[in-house]
Amino acid sequence: MTYCVGVMVDEGMVLLSDTRTNAGFDNISTFKKTFTYEQPGERVIVIMSAGSLSITQTVIAKLEEAIEDQEPSPSTSFMHAPTILQSAEIIGNMLSEVSAGIKQKMARMEQSATASFIVAGQRSGGEQRMFLIYPEGNFIEATDDSPFLQIGEHKYGKPILDRVILPDTSLEDAGKATLLSMDSTLRSNLSVGMPLDLTVIKNGACKVDKHYRIEAGNRGFTAMSEAWSETLRDGFRAMPSMADVDAENTSE
Amino acid sequence: MTYCVGVMVDEGMVLLSDTRTNAGFDNISTFKKTFTYEQPGERVIVIMSAGSLSITQTVIAKLEEAIEDQEPSPSTSFMHAPTILQSAEIIGNMLSEVSAGIKQKMARMEQSATASFIVAGQRSGGEQRMFLIYPEGNFIEATDDSPFLQIGEHKYGKPILDRVILPDTSLEDAGKATLLSMDSTLRSNLSVGMPLDLTVIKNGACKVDKHYRIEAGNRGFTAMSEAWSETLRDGFRAMPSMADVDAENTSE
Repeated sequence: MTYCVGVMVDEGMVLLSDTRTNAGFDNISTFKKTFTYEQPGERVIVIMSAGSLSITQTVIAKLEEAIEDQEPSPSTSFMHAPTILQSAEIIGNMLSEVSAGIKQKMARMEQSATASFIVAGQRSGGEQRMFLIYPEGNFIEATDDSPFLQIGEHKYGKPILDRVILPDTSLEDAGKATLLSMDSTLRSNLSVGMPLDLTVIKNGACKVDKHYRIEAGNRGFTAMSEAWSETLRDGFRAMPSMADVDAENTSE
Repeated sequence: MTYCVGVMVDEGMVLLSDTRTNAGFDNISTFKKTFTYEQPGERVIVIMSAGSLSITQTVIAKLEEAIEDQEPSPSTSFMHAPTILQSAEIIGNMLSEVSAGIKQKMARMEQSATASFIVAGQRSGGEQRMFLIYPEGNFIEATDDSPFLQIGEHKYGKPILDRVILPDTSLEDAGKATLLSMDSTLRSNLSVGMPLDLTVIKNGACKVDKHYRIEAGNRGFTAMSEAWSETLRDGFRAMPSMADVDAENTSE
């Protein structure tokens, strides 16, 4: 399993992924799931992946081949496409193509494999955009009403995002919220694991502002995780009592 | 969908269920999912159900038939079984039997239906016990290490329980935590909905201590929900900054 989350606020975008992959509980490895591409000041695109490694690695490899082609085409290289929307289409088409090929092989063994992506980016002169690409290759886009996207094990970490993230949330707070969202997921699902890859892109900069790995035991992340637990426990203690709910009940 | 949660602490047990059932988004109804049975002071058993109504209603109806039999047998009536463990077995067996029958009908239409239960109870002289009965009819039991059980849409509401519930948590706090766990689920999944059914059983009493319905708009529940949002937002603002995580990163 995997957990990747992307948040898009007015100030920019934050992308966070874990690195755990597993084929059964006794076959656990660390793989990078965040891939960054940039022509600083001109174009930045970040891809995060979830699902079968056999699909995601092939898709990324083929996409990179198209970028590095001697004469790259704007219809196959997402770094040469005229818009981020068209970049998302190129990635979606490649996912669909690779999935279809692997699906045939898997069907012979009565198995299945799927993958999905979050694609975030900006071109000089354009808006920042973020897409969630489904296993079928079609996609949806983050909007002011829904300013974050998640793939993989998304449920545990959704409540904090639902409560905190708005378009005018600061980039700093967006980063904090993605880290807490990941923290809740790490606690509740063993198949999501450290280290983490965090990427920050400022709106308009068209380059990666920060991109670093948070290793297990990172003191800042551990402190944040403990402070959040403390906050929840203290807040919980200070809450109104169940008796208030009781007072207005309709007894059966 | 459904969300039911049962918490077992030293002081007693709290059981909370929603009431929404849906067959498609335009066919939504309210059905009770919590069923209480008691011979006060002697024996109390509470059942909460999730899954296909066609299965859960039939299982409950057949179980009640066995209890109301002229000469009820301890091997088929869970209110006459010598232990709560054996009550859980009776319920599991009935679930397995009913599911198998319905499965054949569903298979003809290439559909499937499943259900699961949480069973909590105590007999005079015995320990309080709580079981999660899987669709296959087998079950697991709540323990000091895992003092809560969930069925249905369980992920959104798990983080708060993971952080708060221990065996020595007070019954009052256990109730508060189940309500907040439900609140997070209601916010994140439309198919879980008000009103709620809350049941409280005190350890050793062998009777239902409280059992009431919390209607939409209950002022106590709304206040609790708002206070929790406030707590999370305030706590979030007071958290250490992302820069602390940043400070110790391993740049790629």
